[in-house]
Amino acid sequence: MNQDYIKPDNWSIIEEGFDTDSVKSSESLFSIGNGAMGQRANFEEQYSAETFQGSYIAGIYYPDKTKVGWWKNGYPEYFAKVLNAPNWIGIDIEINGENLDLNTCVKVKNFRRELNMKEGWYHRSFEAILQNGTEVLVNVRRFLSLDLDEVGVINYEITPLNKEAKIVFKPYIDAGVHNEDANWEEKFWEIQNLNHTENQAFVTARTFKTHFVATTFMQNSILLNGKNKKDIPLKVENNNEKIQFSYEINILKEEVATIQKIGGYTVSLNHENTLLAAQNVIAKALKIGYDQLLQDQINAWAKIWEMSDITIDGDVKAQQGIRFNIFQLNQTYLGKDSRLNIGPKGFTGEKYGGSTYWDTEAYCIPFYMATKDQQVARNLLTYRYNQLDKAIENAEKLGFKNGAALYPMVTMNGEECHNEWEITFEEIHRNGAIAFAIFNYYRFTDDYSYIPEKGLEVLIGIARFWHQRANYSTKREQYVILGVTGPNEYENNVNNNFYTNYIAKWCIHYTLEQIQKVEKEYPQDFTRIMNKVKLSSSEMSEMKKVADNMYFPYSKEHYVYLQQDGFLDKDLVKVADLDKSQRPINQKWSWDRILRSPYIKQADVLQGFYFFEDHFSKEELERHFDFYEPFTVHESSLSPCVHSIQAAVLDKMDMAYTFYLRTSRLDLDDYNKEVEEGCHITSMAGTWMSIVEGFGGMRVKNNALHFSPKIPKEWDSYSFKINFRNQVLKVSINKNKTQFSLEGNSGISVFVNDKKVVVEPNSFVTV
Amino acid sequence: MNQDYIKPDNWSIIEEGFDTDSVKSSESLFSIGNGAMGQRANFEEQYSAETFQGSYIAGIYYPDKTKVGWWKNGYPEYFAKVLNAPNWIGIDIEINGENLDLNTCVKVKNFRRELNMKEGWYHRSFEAILQNGTEVLVNVRRFLSLDLDEVGVINYEITPLNKEAKIVFKPYIDAGVHNEDANWEEKFWEIQNLNHTENQAFVTARTFKTHFVATTFMQNSILLNGKNKKDIPLKVENNNEKIQFSYEINILKEEVATIQKIGGYTVSLNHENTLLAAQNVIAKALKIGYDQLLQDQINAWAKIWEMSDITIDGDVKAQQGIRFNIFQLNQTYLGKDSRLNIGPKGFTGEKYGGSTYWDTEAYCIPFYMATKDQQVARNLLTYRYNQLDKAIENAEKLGFKNGAALYPMVTMNGEECHNEWEITFEEIHRNGAIAFAIFNYYRFTDDYSYIPEKGLEVLIGIARFWHQRANYSTKREQYVILGVTGPNEYENNVNNNFYTNYIAKWCIHYTLEQIQKVEKEYPQDFTRIMNKVKLSSSEMSEMKKVADNMYFPYSKEHYVYLQQDGFLDKDLVKVADLDKSQRPINQKWSWDRILRSPYIKQADVLQGFYFFEDHFSKEELERHFDFYEPFTVHESSLSPCVHSIQAAVLDKMDMAYTFYLRTSRLDLDDYNKEVEEGCHITSMAGTWMSIVEGFGGMRVKNNALHFSPKIPKEWDSYSFKINFRNQVLKVSINKNKTQFSLEGNSGISVFVNDKKVVVEPNSFVTV
Repeated sequence: MNQDYIKPDNWSIIEEGFDTDSVKSSESLFSIGNGAMGQRANFEEQYSAETFQGSYIAGIYYPDKTKVGWWKNGYPEYFAKVLNAPNWIGIDIEINGENLDLNTCVKVKNFRRELNMKEGWYHRSFEAILQNGTEVLVNVRRFLSLDLDEVGVINYEITPLNKEAKIVFKPYIDAGVHNEDANWEEKFWEIQNLNHTENQAFVTARTFKTHFVATTFMQNSILLNGKNKKDIPLKVENNNEKIQFSYEINILKEEVATIQKIGGYTVSLNHENTLLAAQNVIAKALKIGYDQLLQDQINAWAKIWEMSDITIDGDVKAQQGIRFNIFQLNQTYLGKDSRLNIGPKGFTGEKYGGSTYWDTEAYCIPFYMATKDQQVARNLLTYRYNQLDKAIENAEKLGFKNGAALYPMVTMNGEECHNEWEITFEEIHRNGAIAFAIFNYYRFTDDYSYIPEKGLEVLIGIARFWHQRANYSTKREQYVILGVTGPNEYENNVNNNFYTNYIAKWCIHYTLEQIQKVEKEYPQDFTRIMNKVKLSSSEMSEMKKVADNMYFPYSKEHYVYLQQDGFLDKDLVKVADLDKSQRPINQKWSWDRILRSPYIKQADVLQGFYFFEDHFSKEELERHFDFYEPFTVHESSLSPCVHSIQAAVLDKMDMAYTFYLRTSRLDLDDYNKEVEEGCHITSMAGTWMSIVEGFGGMRVKNNALHFSPKIPKEWDSYSFKINFRNQVLKVSINKNKTQFSLEGNSGISVFVNDKKVVVEPNSFVTV
Repeated sequence: MNQDYIKPDNWSIIEEGFDTDSVKSSESLFSIGNGAMGQRANFEEQYSAETFQGSYIAGIYYPDKTKVGWWKNGYPEYFAKVLNAPNWIGIDIEINGENLDLNTCVKVKNFRRELNMKEGWYHRSFEAILQNGTEVLVNVRRFLSLDLDEVGVINYEITPLNKEAKIVFKPYIDAGVHNEDANWEEKFWEIQNLNHTENQAFVTARTFKTHFVATTFMQNSILLNGKNKKDIPLKVENNNEKIQFSYEINILKEEVATIQKIGGYTVSLNHENTLLAAQNVIAKALKIGYDQLLQDQINAWAKIWEMSDITIDGDVKAQQGIRFNIFQLNQTYLGKDSRLNIGPKGFTGEKYGGSTYWDTEAYCIPFYMATKDQQVARNLLTYRYNQLDKAIENAEKLGFKNGAALYPMVTMNGEECHNEWEITFEEIHRNGAIAFAIFNYYRFTDDYSYIPEKGLEVLIGIARFWHQRANYSTKREQYVILGVTGPNEYENNVNNNFYTNYIAKWCIHYTLEQIQKVEKEYPQDFTRIMNKVKLSSSEMSEMKKVADNMYFPYSKEHYVYLQQDGFLDKDLVKVADLDKSQRPINQKWSWDRILRSPYIKQADVLQGFYFFEDHFSKEELERHFDFYEPFTVHESSLSPCVHSIQAAVLDKMDMAYTFYLRTSRLDLDDYNKEVEEGCHITSMAGTWMSIVEGFGGMRVKNNALHFSPKIPKEWDSYSFKINFRNQVLKVSINKNKTQFSLEGNSGISVFVNDKKVVVEPNSFVTV
């Protein structure tokens, strides 16, 4: 039922054979990125069949006007749109007078794509017979440099196979691009100027409204049989938004004509003069040269893999899946720039207009904490700290006061960037995840300094929000939280969502504890913060009253917390009993039908059990898992990983493995039939968690790493590394034993199934 | 706090003094209409300050694309927009070389508007001093002919007061109009052709997408001191979308120059050749002549008032209010064309894009039944019958099957024309009102024939919908209806809205009764219908099970039915304890805050008590009224009338009177601060109900009219007429007695406070 055209391979994503129907999916799957920019796997040469063109620059967006049927107070004026950036990859190819176009060739043979994740490049090759009878072999390699992150490189080789050929390479840069997500085919880039010098061209354009300036550039070199050819006369064509060069070269059969194109973007986020910056970065790249740029790329990726690789033996598909996830996460965000964050589709598509969701705090931070140094996670926390004022403004728009903060559901710049009331106004649990990430960061890193420096202000804003958002129910004699949307977005405007109420209560208690601790241990910070936020002791005690007396819906019949009030009124038909033709329900059913159904899009009560695992017994977890799992349709990419982890805890290893495959190969196997639109980047961190926390059973308790290693029966062994407080611990698990090895200078104690194990540096311990 | 610039008057709406700030409000209040077209009170001459231009043609709309953040299955592809039609009223005026523009005159004196409701015309007069020093007196009368309903007439008189003047009249027709409600200033009319002959001009234009064709026309005559002046040379200017004539006339001080402009629309809904139709209708109007057209208008309105007038003595504001309501209803819909219906803003604004809401069935039908003949009400019912197939399609889109029908929330053509899920998919109670109207029609008219002919099919479709929409709650062992929006739109996606559950239960029971009755009494119709709808006895018994076992939320503490599950969890602060600065909450509060508040936009539980009054005791009504009224903010125009009726039933006459004033002068006094956008037409029928059913206590029980007359202490007396089964009964009530008089041939028995009274034709009975 799912797609299966991707060849299993340990280190590469491989497609063989040309199929116009899978072009858009492959354009997503073979996307490349370097944290600063990204490029869908669009062809360089002309392609006249269906394609979804996409090239994205981190931090560049457009504020589209919010339009709704009946305007509701509190709607943000704008919602953010990811913009397709000007095209830098384009190279039209003319062979003996005919344009090369895979859609019009007489025949395409041996078409192959490879995304080499180990080395960080994308390669495409094919043989084509043109209508004029010329047969050519084409080899194209493309990568986005990790070191020079404004630069992309293309090496495009053509070999005529059956006769000599006149080849015209026509590389271009073009700011006349369209967005798929445009209401009226309107354009979002305004051209500022076009320049070119010999072999180099620059188009500087500015986004409408947001006024981000980007210079898109290219530099071309032509090679014959691998040697630079400098004597080719250059022809230039340009219009208002595009510059195209044209290089003609006549070659014999089996000779190789190559164009090396260096391209990319320099943007006003980083440079005052983007044109000058473009000229500089081209000079730098030229000096390094193509071969060395490629070698640097391989080295840079080797460094990333050294720390973040997970190996799986005995199961190629699982191995390929996890590496694809780790690779994509690193293509999307490298933690260098605290203005950036992790968009749900990364650089692989336009969808989910904004860049930052609660996905970052709930799913991505654990991955980055364990596979990078702690500064990266701190940058992600700081991103929210820097947006605290806007979160307070956002809460004020909704009628909260006195410094209460509601972080946006979707944001580019701290402002709310999405416009549906049931999401924007009501999916308030996101505030909880942002507080939880602060707790989690400290738990993992032991770096408490973040809390007095920055975190406590965020916590206080969030706690104030929950305090004001709850109301007292005289009927229940407890505090209730009405009108919310929980993590399960297949419910809207419900009362007393267990997860939301629980995390609200926790946020207030945790904040009050941190206030006490900061008061005692960081008196100067305490004074500074209290002067700023003006939190009185009576406000604190009111807050505490709310948290102490929070209501949770509970079924005495089933002994489970209810997802929300009224859940048991639903027609409780299990997913297994649902006709398969009805799935996925979000494509088959109308919204009201989804809402009144019992079906759960993604972990909701179970998300609470995941965050607060140690608040509940294993029996409680099992009861809730057994109650909710049968109603869960996993139509969110964020769902199966949590279920996989919990299934592993509960020794349901077959289920855990099934969920693992689903999360790790969600895009490769296209479970949700939407990979065309881009990959699900943020959930890929969940895949990592499902191995490390699920199968490996890793937890941090009382300042120590704990493991309860398990292994799916399909695997021989697996391994991963954890950067725990600047010590890198490698964990290798097979069916019989777990082996630990440690880099660094001092030993570490870990717990395996609650038994203490001491691991010395640079040596193995086997359990 | 509310506006008060409208002068109290028994028969006219009068404004005195010119204020640019009230121009848009007055443009709504002084709107004119004739059931087929309508015109806001825009100035004929140029006006350079703020104005909201609007001219509307019944049945002509544009399907705008539905745009939402995240698309949800079941959304209609389009939602309908009321279109501003080409301008036929425009007359630019040049006086001694200067354009007349009230915004640029040196002085405007004695500005006065009058909407004469008795005679059906709008008059405007003023004296202006132009910048060139010329002083002029202007008198303009305008009306839309009831008899020739494609025709509007303007008589525009200018008298120079201080010197002779060269007057240039420049009448035009213009299809280059804009909609206020346009996303991108786009146009909705495509010009087809422009023609003119001497004194006549025609612009034929077609709406984009829907392809309605309208010829906008004008015919002009110039008069000097009341005498036709034929020798004026005509100048014509036209561009692609506009034709403008220009007539120059030099007159002495205190002479009167007049232009008589006949204009309007002929449309493809009624004519194959709209241009020819326009020429014909101009000829007809010219033949009748201005004076007779005006006299015919007065006569036609006299006929309407003869039947529908309500008199109130001793309270001019109340008198003016009720007449304004009756006048506007008759301007909007006259019951001649069963393709048309009653839009919430009539012809006074663009808002509420579609034309037909449940307002028609719940509020308007009683007015039209009692003040016109029963054919008008039957036309309104037939409108829905004709759209049954589309209602079935609409239900299918939402996953219902087997002939279940869900009527659209907003429609122009039977398709759903609105695009918010919480309204479109969930405000399903509208289906109940449509069934109730069938019951109500029979109750009032005794014309059962409609049910076997048409009504039963509608009832079966609706009953099937309710049957499928409810689900069994194993927890409650009853049927529940989850995820709805009740009449109170300040709640969305709630469970077990009392009103919805109640009307669902009633619909099923009522339908099953009608099936039995039709089977017995109309066996042929029964067979025809059953062959068509294929309703099995098992489906009927399943249906009955749902209705028999419907769950209703109830508070044992307050002894009231709850508006929905969870209502008592709210923070139950009464409206009276709410800070005034917070009102109206729909302008001050964000949507989530409104949703979780206890505030009720319009009668909800009480709407159920209104429809099904005889199902509940007076004590029950009082308990529910006392419970819900304090939380009701009446921010819907449909709210105060129901509360007024119930307050009268409960002898709370002060409240009843306050609500009456609020409903009857909602627009005149602009309670909701939005009259600029247009008047609230459908709720005006509620005003009528609040006198007839509220103060008069009229009910139909067991085929007889019942009254329980009351009178507000502010009034001396009041009277109204009821067309009950082709007998016209006049009811006059003062503080001491009630008088009945009857037109027609045979007597009638009515009940006054449950005592029988026999009224003979053409005589009085006093009680």
